[in-house]
Parts: sequence; C-alpha cells; structure tokens
Amino acid sequence: MTHPLFEKHRATLESALNAISTRGYWSPFPEMPSPRLYGETAPEEGKRAFEAHLGKHFELGQPGQTGWHGGEASPYGVALDVGYPVCEPDALIAAGLEAMKGWQAMGTDGRTGICLEILERLNRQSFEIAHAVMMTTGQGWMMAFQAGGPHAQDRGLEAVAYAWREQGFVPAEAAWEKPQGKNPPLAMKKHFQIVGRGIGLVIGCGTFPTWNTYPGLFAALSTGNAVIVKPHSNAILPAAITVRTIRAVLAENGIDPDLVSLCVAAKRATTQALATHPAVKSIDFTGGNVFGQWLIDNCRQAQVYAELAGVNNIVIDSTDAYKAMLGNLAFTLSLYSGQMCTTSQAIFVPAGGIETDDGHKSYDEFCADLAKAIERFLSKPEVAHAVLGAIQSADTAERIGVADSGALGKVVLASTALENPEFPGAKVRTPVLLACDAADEKAYMEERFGPISFIVKVADTAAAIALSERVVGTHGALTVGVYSTKQDVIDAMTEATWRSKVALSINLTGGVFVNQSAAFSDYHGTGGNPAANASYADSAFVANRFRVVQRRYHV
Amino acid sequence: MTHPLFEKHRATLESALNAISTRGYWSPFPEMPSPRLYGETAPEEGKRAFEAHLGKHFELGQPGQTGWHGGEASPYGVALDVGYPVCEPDALIAAGLEAMKGWQAMGTDGRTGICLEILERLNRQSFEIAHAVMMTTGQGWMMAFQAGGPHAQDRGLEAVAYAWREQGFVPAEAAWEKPQGKNPPLAMKKHFQIVGRGIGLVIGCGTFPTWNTYPGLFAALSTGNAVIVKPHSNAILPAAITVRTIRAVLAENGIDPDLVSLCVAAKRATTQALATHPAVKSIDFTGGNVFGQWLIDNCRQAQVYAELAGVNNIVIDSTDAYKAMLGNLAFTLSLYSGQMCTTSQAIFVPAGGIETDDGHKSYDEFCADLAKAIERFLSKPEVAHAVLGAIQSADTAERIGVADSGALGKVVLASTALENPEFPGAKVRTPVLLACDAADEKAYMEERFGPISFIVKVADTAAAIALSERVVGTHGALTVGVYSTKQDVIDAMTEATWRSKVALSINLTGGVFVNQSAAFSDYHGTGGNPAANASYADSAFVANRFRVVQRRYHV
Repeated sequence: MTHPLFEKHRATLESALNAISTRGYWSPFPEMPSPRLYGETAPEEGKRAFEAHLGKHFELGQPGQTGWHGGEASPYGVALDVGYPVCEPDALIAAGLEAMKGWQAMGTDGRTGICLEILERLNRQSFEIAHAVMMTTGQGWMMAFQAGGPHAQDRGLEAVAYAWREQGFVPAEAAWEKPQGKNPPLAMKKHFQIVGRGIGLVIGCGTFPTWNTYPGLFAALSTGNAVIVKPHSNAILPAAITVRTIRAVLAENGIDPDLVSLCVAAKRATTQALATHPAVKSIDFTGGNVFGQWLIDNCRQAQVYAELAGVNNIVIDSTDAYKAMLGNLAFTLSLYSGQMCTTSQAIFVPAGGIETDDGHKSYDEFCADLAKAIERFLSKPEVAHAVLGAIQSADTAERIGVADSGALGKVVLASTALENPEFPGAKVRTPVLLACDAADEKAYMEERFGPISFIVKVADTAAAIALSERVVGTHGALTVGVYSTKQDVIDAMTEATWRSKVALSINLTGGVFVNQSAAFSDYHGTGGNPAANASYADSAFVANRFRVVQRRYHV
Repeated sequence: MTHPLFEKHRATLESALNAISTRGYWSPFPEMPSPRLYGETAPEEGKRAFEAHLGKHFELGQPGQTGWHGGEASPYGVALDVGYPVCEPDALIAAGLEAMKGWQAMGTDGRTGICLEILERLNRQSFEIAHAVMMTTGQGWMMAFQAGGPHAQDRGLEAVAYAWREQGFVPAEAAWEKPQGKNPPLAMKKHFQIVGRGIGLVIGCGTFPTWNTYPGLFAALSTGNAVIVKPHSNAILPAAITVRTIRAVLAENGIDPDLVSLCVAAKRATTQALATHPAVKSIDFTGGNVFGQWLIDNCRQAQVYAELAGVNNIVIDSTDAYKAMLGNLAFTLSLYSGQMCTTSQAIFVPAGGIETDDGHKSYDEFCADLAKAIERFLSKPEVAHAVLGAIQSADTAERIGVADSGALGKVVLASTALENPEFPGAKVRTPVLLACDAADEKAYMEERFGPISFIVKVADTAAAIALSERVVGTHGALTVGVYSTKQDVIDAMTEATWRSKVALSINLTGGVFVNQSAAFSDYHGTGGNPAANASYADSAFVANRFRVVQRRYHV
C-alpha cells in the first residue's frame, strides 16, 4: 500500500536513482524555456503570474503573523514592492513540530511521493519562478530560467533520491532469531521507525535563491523534518513562490501545510535567534564567511551544511586549442558577471609563458589575449546583456570599483558600464581583469565576489599547481581547472586536487564551463575544503538528517 | 582486478551487507569461548599471549617515540606493569598522512579486504584480548570474551560493511553525454576519486576498550583515513594489541603501518592538542560529558562522534510475568556492576502500584521484590563474580558509597563488598537500589555510573511515560524499557520514544536484556538525544568520513 503519488512518480525516482549511481547525463526537467516543452501558453502565463505578485501582499496563511515586510531592490531597476508575511519564529517552529507527526506517519514512500509531486508542480511554474529569480538576482533570462527553474529542481530531486535511498535501507521490521544450541532460539520482533530530527532551517543566498535552497530544503523535508526557509532579504519572491506551492501540495495531501514555512526577518537578530533555537536541528546555509562561521560557531544544536567563500582558480600550462580555451574562459568570467560561487577568480600562468597551437605566448600576451577574448565575446550588446545580467548588490559594484582603480593589480581589462535598453535602471558591468604577481597574495587570495579576476604570474607550472593546492586548502574553492597538453602535468594537478579536495575541470574548450555543474553527475563542492563542508549531493548530505528509533519484544 | 583479501572475505562482506539490510540475527564470530570453535589450544595460547605482555615494554615501532608510559591498575588487583611507547603526536600525524597515499590507492575493495582480514586476525586473538579486557576493565570473563572479542569485532565489521556500501555507490568513472538537439551531444568523461579526510582520532573508554573503539576505528580506516587510537589511561592493553595486529596486517599487504598508531599520553593537554590539530578530521569519543563537550566545543575542524552520559530508564505499568520481569531486571542491574552505558538507572513505578500475574503489587512491594530478586540472583558467589566482575574506577566506588549512605534516596538494597577467592585484590560490589519520589530529580536525573539504580515513584503510568520522555530529551539515554500488558500504554511509550529518540525494549522477560544490543540488528544509540550524537551503526556514521573528488574532460 504505497502512496498514490509515490506510484505516480516511481519511474522518475528510479531514473534519478540510476542517475546518481551511474552519474551520466539525465534530467526530467527540460532546460529550454520552450513553449513546445512547457506548453504554448506557459511563457505568457508565467510572466503574468510573476507580474501579479508585484505591488501586493504575498499571502501564505502562516501562523503567528505580526505584519508584512518587503523591500527587495531589483538589480534591473524594476519596482517589485511585494510584501511578505512576518511571523513569530516561535509560532513557525511550534507549528512545524506539530506538523511533523503526520509527516512521519506518511513513511518514506509517502514523503518521497509528495516531494516529487511538489517538484513537478514547481517545474510547471518555471517561467514564473524564472522571472522572479531574474528580477531579484540580476541573472540574465536564460540563466534565470535554467538555474532558477529546471536545474534547481534537478538538485532538489537529486536530494530526494539520495534521501530515499538512505531511508530505504532501513527495514520497517525484522525477525531476529539467535540460536541457543539445543535450546529453542531467542526470538524477537523488532520495528524501526524513521523520525525527522526537528526543524530544518534553510538560509538562502541573494544570487541563486532556488538552486542553492532546494537541495537542503528537499533533503530535510523528505527525511521527515519540518522546514523553515529564510530567504536572502533581496531574493524573497522565488522562495515565497516555492513555499506557497509546497504548502498547497501538502494541504492537498492531508498534511498540515505549516510543515514548511517562510521566515522573513527584518533584523539579523531574528535570524540568529531562530538559528540557535533548540528545535532547529539542521541548517543549510549559502553565503559569506562571516555569518556562515557565526552559524557554525553558535548553532551547536544543529548540523550546519555551509557553502561559504572560496578562491576558485585555474592553472594554465599549455594548450593545443588556444582560441577555444580563451573563448571558454571568456564565457566563464562573463557569465552572470562572475557572481557565481563557481566562477574562477585566479588564473595561474607561468612567468615564462605557455606553449600553444598558435605558438609560444608570453605571460603578457596571454593577458592581452584573454582581455581581447572577453571584449570580443561581449561586443554584441544583446549577447552581453543576456550573459552578464546585472550586478546583484552594491557591495559587488563597490568591489568592481576598487579593482578598476588599479589598487589590487595592474588593470588588463577595465570594467565598463553598459546601458540595457530593455531595463534602463539595470546596473550592468563587464568583467575587470587584473595582472599581479604570485607574491601579491593579499590581492588575489581572498574571495572578491563579482566579475573580478586575476591573472597571477607564477614561477612555473609546478609552482602554479602547488599554489593552487595551497589556495584551495587554506581559502577553499568549489572549482579548479587546468589546461595542459602534458599528461604528467594533468596527473600532478589531479593529485593536488585529491589533497585539497576540489573538483577539477581539464582542458575545457567546448560547451562545458568550469563554473557549471550538472545535477546527478557533478558533485557541487566536495565538502572537504573551506569553501563548503558539504556537497550537492551525496549520502553525507542526507544520512544525518533522520534518525532510526527501534523497538523490540520477545515473540 | 580486485584485491585478493577482498575476494577471500567477499562472502563475509555479502553476509554483513545482507544483515544490515534485514537486521536479523547474524555474526561470523562465535561468541562462545569454546575450544571447539576457536581451536583446542586457543584458550591456553591466548592466556599465555596475554601473560607475555605483563611487566614488559609493548613494542610497536612507531615514529617519534620519546619514552614509555604505563600505569594501568587492574580492578582485579593483578599487577600489569606494561609500558607503552610514548610518541610525539606530530610525528604520528605526519606519518599517518603520508601513509594515506598508499591506502587511498588501494581503492574501496582493497581497503575493505584488508579491514576484513584484520578483523579475522583479531578474532583469532579473542582469548588474548579477552584477558586484556578483563584485567583492565574489571569485566567478568564471559563478558570480557564476548564484548571484548567477537561482539566488538561484529561492530567493527558492521562499520566496514556500511562504509563499503556507501563508498560502493560512487562509480570510478562516468560517461556524460548531453543531447544538443540537432548538434552532436556534449560528451565528457568523468572520474570520481574517494579520498579520506585526514586523521581519524579514536578516543577509547575505560570500560569497553574494544567494543566502543572498533566502530569508529574501522569506519575511519575503511573510508581511507589514517587512524590514531588514544586509549583510556587504564585500558591501554586491549587497544595496543589491536593496533599491533592492524599494523602487522597493513605491513604484510604493502601498506605503511604508520597508517594506524597508538597514542599514549600522560597528560590531558597532549590529548587536547592532538584533538584540535588541523589534520584531525574526525573524532570518535566514548566517555563523560565534560571531556566530550570539550571536544565538541573545541574541535571544530573535525566531525565529532560522541557517546556521552545518559539516564537510561524503564517504565513499569503492569506485567503478566512478574517473576520473569524481576529476574530480567536483576540481571540487567547486576551485569558488570552496572558499569555499562546501557544499564538502566531509573525505574519509574506508579504510586498506586502495578497489576501483575501474581496480583496487585504496591510500590513498596515492588521495591522489596526487586531487591530480593537481585539478592537471590547474586546469592551464589560463582554467579555473582562471573556477572558482577569488579569495580573499574575509584570514582564509581565512591559513587556507590554515596548512594549507600542514603544521601540520594531511601536504601532499598544496600551494596555489599564481596571477596573474590580467585582475585583477592578485586574490588567487587553488589548493586545498590534506592527508592525516591519523582520530585527528587536531583537524585536520579543525572548519570550515576555504576551499580546504582533508583525506583522512582510517579503519579501514574502516563506521568511515568512523560517523565521518561523528558529525561531522555534533556539528559539523554541509550536505552529505555517498558513493561505493560496494555497495548495503549505500549503505544504511548512507543510514541514518546519517537519524540525523545531512544531505543525501546518492551516486556523483556527472557534471555535478552535492555542493556544489550546486537550488532547488525540493534542500533546502539540513535544519535538523536543527548546521550549520543551518532549510532552504531548507520549510514550517517560512515558517509561523512570520506569525500569524492571528481575530474572531467571533453571526449
């Protein structure tokens, strides 16, 4: 007697389980915002659904509401003016704990079926969510659709699949018979109940409000916990839409919708009190080191899954596809104006230059050629706007200014401000490229979030690999890359990444970029260096979110 | 091309994997110390091997040795005088990290095969280890053999099986092909490398130096980590024998034996420096709350798996087997003089008494009957000594004295000192049983390790269940029990344990006791209440001990 929604989505779950085991390409959610795939009316309906939120109160029907709060400022300069319910955290916690009883009783299959139904419903809302993501984060449309919609749903589904697999190993009951020689065996019946640990708090970030929220949300939810989503103060709408849909699907299936709620807090102190509440047993966080470390230091009652800052880097030794390499790097550095936790910040180039299929290139030539490649890539305004999007925060804009001033290194390519004809208020900036020496560690060995990258001159390739390992080990990284035509260099870089524990992309020259990771195949973060203590997704991401309570008796 | 030792032990691994999935009875290691099972000469050889250690330096050939340290005092009053190598922790760490390279290269199957070989070799040493456990902990012979030998080996094997399963989910490589409409697909080759996280520090306890050490040791080792075993200062020998055997098997298989080392530290500060070392990535600890909490608070670089103090308890509502219930409880309270982390400390009995197959029993009658049952059970000296063993520490002896004085409650059964004719220096004490009111929380709501139990008078069964839940939730417990003939009482107790997250034993009257847990079937600890933040064993116990480092490239 499994749950009807489990039966409905069983094939999807089985495909997801196969995908996380084989790690080939797979996704049930089309990544192209195509009417053919999502329905002829989906684009227009999604846009209208988004617009219907603007200037309104976003009703959620949550307990303990004391007022409304909003204030999101769109990087595109568009007025949003959405008000979100402000609720007493204690009321959300109490209601969530109460709702866990019914959720536990659904069992693993029931919870999994409902989570898969939620993901399908969110997928149908991909256009609406994409507009919300685009307008709150400054992402370009295509990225907002893909990363905000299907790719985020993929990561949510991935977490559900891992959670199902781990929970599925626990039998509901067992017959235990221990032989006693010539005497009758000792016989016991045992039952094993999977129980959630309590409240899962998921703290979103300002740049990827769904992609970085869904893994923790669905991991905690599908393992039997209540979830409170605390979105970034400037990217509430995508989270609010998500929470409303989840609450609707829960209610339709007889589960108290207060199992999942949105916590909008005007003050940092409210979030801190929530995060340290004894009932909060897990915290998923994406964001800066200061608050991340505060959570790790202060929320000792909870398991904290944190993605923090890092210094992603690339070692350039040699290439047999110089132009394609430059093109690949130009795209990586430009995409969403470098506002990705996976964007390369430091490019290590030997002082003696590199060998390429286009002849030897000196360090200075490489700098000039990469600058030209970026300029060329962004020379068409429609491409530039689609790729760059807009600058998400004033802090990032300020960092660009500092870099542009030459204070951090020689400016190889200055950032320019672009006018976006569709969104006159959009803050659009092209990447800034700096040259510096390996000794200038203060410049490049600290995350400078945004379109700011350093071409770092190192003694030679061996020194570059050693430097990459040290940077990752001490400051963290989600991604590193290497370009080389020599197997021994690739092997040395591979072994360095085993020690520093970071994902490596080798000789990317085609349509895959170092800052992109594909759900079900690429682990996002290893959990083994300072940039993240967990990975999307692996068994460790789900296994500690539930506990097994047994009971036994003689038979 | 799997490892020969993996092939040798493949059937054992497969049986273990089946056991952790079905959780029926299984063990590859015979629990009876029988010459028929272990070889005619095994008992005598084991005893001689143990005796050969006495009064000697225990050579391990570890790096950084600066001297020798010993000083174990046997609870049986036997002179041990074994000296163990004192080594610089930094030298052990450096050597361990260096040895990890070759260990990683073995792959999951190679590591698993070698761990299984180690366990088989330890099993052959069960008699030697049993004598070492008995003489350092004060356990009776049968318990020392079973819990110190085969049952500890079971728990180690269980951890290896979980670790193999989780590592086995990670494919070595994957072909990733993403369709691109009419264009050729994007195609990549990906490799996934399992890497250990660093040094796994395993801190043993004084009462179960192998049973509580093997799970963490084998979980960390089989997932690719180096391991440093820091035994309790009074139970070094069982750990030293274990480490020597591990080092021998590693060396025989071409692995640097410094992968696993013994750290004997005369000062607490040495252990603290070791535990907070940046290279230490996991800590397994069994012991008191003070040092355990210190580890959790200060070792932020490591994942800490801690088993701490608790207040195990039993709710007595009614029974249809009064005599058998009393006999079961008498055994539980007497076994190893209550020096088990699973022994019941508080027995909650309704003020109005209980219904039994022997008629109504008042609270006072129950107290008297349980006292009589213990006295009767321990009336034969040979049974008493076999079951009680000896008192492991002066602290426990002191606690018995305090309890006996009546300071904590009315003495229902006083502890008596017994003379052990075989070991005249043994400190042997029978259990002390106290009566108190539910309001006397200061008395019973704190772990009083040793043979000290409280029969707590509560208003009624419902109050007893609520009190049990509160005690477990606030002070922790590894075990609770309930006796009732009413299904609604059992159901209420079951639901209480789901909330407080503790294993429940129902109506135990036969040859299974609330303080016993069987590997592969019973989870030891849930990881969900203050008595332990982890469980022997589940996926969460192993999944976060290794990381996956991927690399990818176009094909």
